[in-house]
Amino acid sequence: MATLTSRKSFLRWVLRHQHKLKQMVRTCHLKVKEVYGLDEYRNEEPESQETFKFSELTTKLADPDQLRLKPDVSELKFGQVFSDHMLKAFYHERLGGWQKPVIIPFENVSLHPAAKVLHYAIELFEGLKAYRGKDGRIRIFRPDLNMNRMNSSALSSGLPTFHGEELIKCINRLVQVDQEWVPHKEGASLYIRPTLIGIDGTLGVAKSESALLFTILCPVDSYFDGKEEGVSLLADPRFARAWPGGCGDRKMGSNYGPTIRVQTEAIKRGRQQVLWLYGPEEYLTEVGTMNIFAFYIDDKGDKVLATPPLNGLILPGVTRQSIIDLALEYKEFRVEEKLLTMKDIITLQRQNRILELFGSGTACIVSPISSIEYMDELIEIPTLQQKSPIFKRFRDELYAIQYGHKKHPWAMPIE
Amino acid sequence: MATLTSRKSFLRWVLRHQHKLKQMVRTCHLKVKEVYGLDEYRNEEPESQETFKFSELTTKLADPDQLRLKPDVSELKFGQVFSDHMLKAFYHERLGGWQKPVIIPFENVSLHPAAKVLHYAIELFEGLKAYRGKDGRIRIFRPDLNMNRMNSSALSSGLPTFHGEELIKCINRLVQVDQEWVPHKEGASLYIRPTLIGIDGTLGVAKSESALLFTILCPVDSYFDGKEEGVSLLADPRFARAWPGGCGDRKMGSNYGPTIRVQTEAIKRGRQQVLWLYGPEEYLTEVGTMNIFAFYIDDKGDKVLATPPLNGLILPGVTRQSIIDLALEYKEFRVEEKLLTMKDIITLQRQNRILELFGSGTACIVSPISSIEYMDELIEIPTLQQKSPIFKRFRDELYAIQYGHKKHPWAMPIE
Repeated sequence: MATLTSRKSFLRWVLRHQHKLKQMVRTCHLKVKEVYGLDEYRNEEPESQETFKFSELTTKLADPDQLRLKPDVSELKFGQVFSDHMLKAFYHERLGGWQKPVIIPFENVSLHPAAKVLHYAIELFEGLKAYRGKDGRIRIFRPDLNMNRMNSSALSSGLPTFHGEELIKCINRLVQVDQEWVPHKEGASLYIRPTLIGIDGTLGVAKSESALLFTILCPVDSYFDGKEEGVSLLADPRFARAWPGGCGDRKMGSNYGPTIRVQTEAIKRGRQQVLWLYGPEEYLTEVGTMNIFAFYIDDKGDKVLATPPLNGLILPGVTRQSIIDLALEYKEFRVEEKLLTMKDIITLQRQNRILELFGSGTACIVSPISSIEYMDELIEIPTLQQKSPIFKRFRDELYAIQYGHKKHPWAMPIE
Repeated sequence: MATLTSRKSFLRWVLRHQHKLKQMVRTCHLKVKEVYGLDEYRNEEPESQETFKFSELTTKLADPDQLRLKPDVSELKFGQVFSDHMLKAFYHERLGGWQKPVIIPFENVSLHPAAKVLHYAIELFEGLKAYRGKDGRIRIFRPDLNMNRMNSSALSSGLPTFHGEELIKCINRLVQVDQEWVPHKEGASLYIRPTLIGIDGTLGVAKSESALLFTILCPVDSYFDGKEEGVSLLADPRFARAWPGGCGDRKMGSNYGPTIRVQTEAIKRGRQQVLWLYGPEEYLTEVGTMNIFAFYIDDKGDKVLATPPLNGLILPGVTRQSIIDLALEYKEFRVEEKLLTMKDIITLQRQNRILELFGSGTACIVSPISSIEYMDELIEIPTLQQKSPIFKRFRDELYAIQYGHKKHPWAMPIE
């Protein structure tokens, strides 16, 4: 770049570099679009009037000889053993839409080999949990949020929507039928997996005219048994989980398949999970299948709890929302939905201003992070060195709500 | 920006803007990574020694009463009617890997409701065609390329790989068994859909320990019956099909589900397909499920055939490769794998230098494009106004090879 000695040469410089400057402006413009949400571009439709109805639910119980032995919950790995029954509701456009829901003995799903779910990933799911409280009553945590997200995912997948409260009532009934599968142990729970798949037996990438909504249940033990260990992460800017103009904020199957090769790479390098970055700024987006939170001291000396905003790249987690809600009630530190870059984290860590990093999700509730491998460097995070860390406070409070130690509208006993 | 009158103030300007300049440099750096391939980052492993074997294939023919009526091929829509048999091969890690392949009567697939394919889109597919030649013999077009791509997709999905030539032999046998399903009509063909899905009955995003490879067949009519019509496209930079660090160059189900809402938007706006752009430069990537080609006159007056390079955002199409191969043999115009932006296309069109735009794929072979809606403007492309368009030359030549009018190693008769 030549030295500029006059206004004239400056103008010449601008002329010569106008292409780059223009590009810079356009890039910034896109960045704003990228970062501050693409919601205006989603073709959301008003919620459909169509739905299956709880009042039409029929139940066919398993024969006594079909019932399975309930395993010792402390020996269970996640998602390996399922309960005795399942919920099913078919949708067929040419039969008028949603059919009557049924609870039936757990069984295989029979699909036409051209079913869209097997070829084009026309599929979505949810994850929520039923907890047996200290009073023996069963509670499900904030299922309404899962239903909203499930309908958003359906809209983005060309799958039929439904009324969330109808599915909640059907799921409650399913959990009641299999209530002995809700572990009699605090810390353990019954994981609930509603799933919606496109089943038309025709090739061609298109809206589904037939779909199957089903729900299965599996007992899971506590994620943490006494010993507290931090998660180690691999942050590699070469891989991206989601991108602007995509569907990273939906719980669609297509967000998971492509992550396996990167997760495999993390394990190979001795890290447990992937910290997904985005773009040249290396924004933190998610951890494995969790949302991420940072608790730190800002440059004015104030404590801040921050998590990335719902800008289209982030799954709107139910535990994420609950932590924000609780933190706002505490009124003890600032709570922000804001962008965090890898550079921010490194600066905070070097200046001893990062206090905690943790992930949140239905499976793990709250999971402390102890280190990040980034560009062949290991960044240690002192989450577990805090005296009374806030991640533990959130976990304990959610636990108290989920197991009925604290009465709260987020977890009412099911009838 | 202040007027600069001296070297000192220029330096001050640089200091004040160094953040932006740095960002510009980093953005450019990433752009290079983005655009010129991420291949070095893929964790490709050497091809597995494991495979199922054609020599172990057994065939169970359908009973005569199971055989279906063959429909009039000219009344068929794509992917609606299937042949009488299918090919299946299971993979179970704990049983030593690939099991013996079988040809059986066409039937539903029975899956555990937790099967990974239904939740996490652990799935991939291929599309190829069998043609009945003018000599009555059946040819399959370049199946080796499909096999390579299928194994690449498997590696990226945590699914088992296999030896391509074994699957080709099994598919050839399947086509022989259902040979009466290969239409007796030039222009029509039998579409072959190999599919590989993860079927472990356990929740958790992980490598598949059990998988099912199956292949189904459906007769399809010619895409074009005499009347030549151009495709109209919607190019909307707010949507992206693939992104650097993702799996856009693999034929995985996860690349298709998220496109449905955008395709629906295109139809709503009266366009037939989506032209997928990428990034602030608005690079052309793909059209619907086709690769894209531009034929134009460059600024020196030379004719150029260009298609985007395989930079990680582009599916390595078999027809795409074949068109490049044929064009290189012609030696009549320059053939380039190069990046094309929307701006390039607009400039070429305004200067009357764009001759043709067309898509390529197994389903459509070669499909002329007549217009692009971009930012509320309709850009007309004179593809169909050319006297002897090259898209038609490619289509005719591929046709001649596929139907045995021209002997060619790309389409040898199956035994």
